[in-house]
Amino acid sequence: MDEYYMRQALTIAQYARGRTSPNPMVGAVIVQAGHIVGQGWHRLAGTPHAEIHALAQAGELAKGATIYVTLEPCSHHGRTGPCTDALLKAGVKKVVVAMTDPNPKVAGNGLARLKAAGIEVVEGVLAAEAAKLNEVFIKWISTGLPFASLKTAMSLDGKIAAYTGHSKWITSSAAREYVHTLRDTHDAILVGIGTLLADDPQLTTRLPAGGKNPLRIIVDSMARTPLTANVVKDQQSQTVIAVSRSAPKEKITALQKSGVEVLLLEQTPLGLNLRQLYKILGERQISSILVEGGAAVNASLLAENLIDKVYSFIAPKIVGGKNAPGPVGGMGVSAVDQAIMLEDIHTHTIGSDILISGYVTGREGRDVYRTCGRIRDN
Amino acid sequence: MDEYYMRQALTIAQYARGRTSPNPMVGAVIVQAGHIVGQGWHRLAGTPHAEIHALAQAGELAKGATIYVTLEPCSHHGRTGPCTDALLKAGVKKVVVAMTDPNPKVAGNGLARLKAAGIEVVEGVLAAEAAKLNEVFIKWISTGLPFASLKTAMSLDGKIAAYTGHSKWITSSAAREYVHTLRDTHDAILVGIGTLLADDPQLTTRLPAGGKNPLRIIVDSMARTPLTANVVKDQQSQTVIAVSRSAPKEKITALQKSGVEVLLLEQTPLGLNLRQLYKILGERQISSILVEGGAAVNASLLAENLIDKVYSFIAPKIVGGKNAPGPVGGMGVSAVDQAIMLEDIHTHTIGSDILISGYVTGREGRDVYRTCGRIRDN
Repeated sequence: MDEYYMRQALTIAQYARGRTSPNPMVGAVIVQAGHIVGQGWHRLAGTPHAEIHALAQAGELAKGATIYVTLEPCSHHGRTGPCTDALLKAGVKKVVVAMTDPNPKVAGNGLARLKAAGIEVVEGVLAAEAAKLNEVFIKWISTGLPFASLKTAMSLDGKIAAYTGHSKWITSSAAREYVHTLRDTHDAILVGIGTLLADDPQLTTRLPAGGKNPLRIIVDSMARTPLTANVVKDQQSQTVIAVSRSAPKEKITALQKSGVEVLLLEQTPLGLNLRQLYKILGERQISSILVEGGAAVNASLLAENLIDKVYSFIAPKIVGGKNAPGPVGGMGVSAVDQAIMLEDIHTHTIGSDILISGYVTGREGRDVYRTCGRIRDN
Repeated sequence: MDEYYMRQALTIAQYARGRTSPNPMVGAVIVQAGHIVGQGWHRLAGTPHAEIHALAQAGELAKGATIYVTLEPCSHHGRTGPCTDALLKAGVKKVVVAMTDPNPKVAGNGLARLKAAGIEVVEGVLAAEAAKLNEVFIKWISTGLPFASLKTAMSLDGKIAAYTGHSKWITSSAAREYVHTLRDTHDAILVGIGTLLADDPQLTTRLPAGGKNPLRIIVDSMARTPLTANVVKDQQSQTVIAVSRSAPKEKITALQKSGVEVLLLEQTPLGLNLRQLYKILGERQISSILVEGGAAVNASLLAENLIDKVYSFIAPKIVGGKNAPGPVGGMGVSAVDQAIMLEDIHTHTIGSDILISGYVTGREGRDVYRTCGRIRDN
């Protein structure tokens, strides 16, 4: 039954997907004599944790009950009081958690405090599922870098546009709406200057029921973003333009006067220091980035090991063209056995298109994910 | 119950996939008092038809029975006697067919003959499934052209090789073995001279349990195929090299002396007349072709409307490279809304790869297929 209740806690945790950043998603279920008597999930950073909602719902019935929590209860005083204290005060008898807190500074402290108070503690129930639920939080808290998802959309012959550059639209409206749900659940969206100049995108979330606009990041080493670009003018969300020190100073000033933020990045032999960009964003509590191209910036991020997950939309059509662009440019690897491998592949049909998603293997965030997933094996 | 028995007839029909060409696959099931008393399938052109096998198995029990056949019984004297006569002689009471013969010269004659003899006839049971089973035969018998399947293998970013040309291997061994099952069930395999010069492929079927080698066709307008190429030297299957009249005569003679056949084709403004090639192959009873690229010949065949079906293998890896080749070259369409559309899309996992297959829409063979599928709606 532990897995049954924990699965319910995982289910309610994700009601808040994209809303808890930089906190993790957490769900809690309280069980008294075989019945669920309270449940709750963390809704928004700075508001009560899942355990507090569940305890409030259970009331007196929490006494002697078992609580299932997807993540180790906190023991530190943050913006809300420590959950361990609340659990002890409510008289909970047993605490079952899916995984310990991946923050290396606090991992295990909450459980130790509970054990010291005589509470029965069970760890590692559905640990892999819990780690997957919070892949974004785990990457960010462990590395300081945001979890980055690359989204591409191409034809069945690997083209993101015709040889003329025409690209509206490769995929169906259902697939494009799905991309807006991704935007809605990411803290930031990132494109290169090529895409901005070609498409003048809004980079906002446009869903029938509304949505949250991500922070807009433009990788633009020479500050070529026009002052008339949608992302500069429309005020729909904050825009950050990452430029190099070689960018014209007067253009930088003009962009700043237009209300966008300009970040001056170091340069590497390959171009802008994108890892520095990620580090700055991570420090600002941007825990997730949706990368939407184009081919050049996608290639740079992949080469710099700055992509964790890939969402590849494939439209069942053939565009053709030796010179029609694909989703990943740059130099590429010289032999196919050096290709960047993906794993944990899932395939979905979305409208008339196919979505293949997977994780880049052997990368930082992924290693952390696996480590957490292995808790269950202990 | 009609559909139940017809489904069984369709199942056994495909036991002979790739072996009946240029005949269709046909299955027959004889039912007497609610029990199957005989069944058979056509195994090889020139050998007995499905109905004859089923009648032999049913023996005396065929008298007064119902026979389910996936295709209208023949009424003409071919290499074997007409099945309609055999059915009448055996005393069958009722004949249920999935579809009429798609050969416009004979369609309906067999059924008319049975009806004239007082047999109850039912048409159109699982007609769409029967038409799909024999998509190859239907295309060939209706148009005189072979049914062509394009097979491509690319990375998740649409590359068939690294920028260096290195391509061994994009896909997993399981996917490559699947390609050999496709070769085993096609009459011919077609590649362009670029692929031949780059890879020196054998173009044979290499399966653990053996297999049938397809006829090998090389599209090579200037007769650049080396005399030392595997397809010239290895004698494992017949090879046809399609050249233009501009090809050097002495090279043509040398190739012919090496035992390969050279076809002199007309030229069109776009290159070799590939439709003429298909016509010649169709006249030789080649009813199916597996096209295995490369990018240039794939693009030409697609542009000439000479591809019916696409098998696209996608490996979950990223190769990258602005100059790394994709599966379809040529000029391509100028706007994505002019792309060649596919329909009836299926997605399968094969080893670590994904196979997306579908049919080119609005093309000759497909129109015929649809017409046959509609029999059921009458």
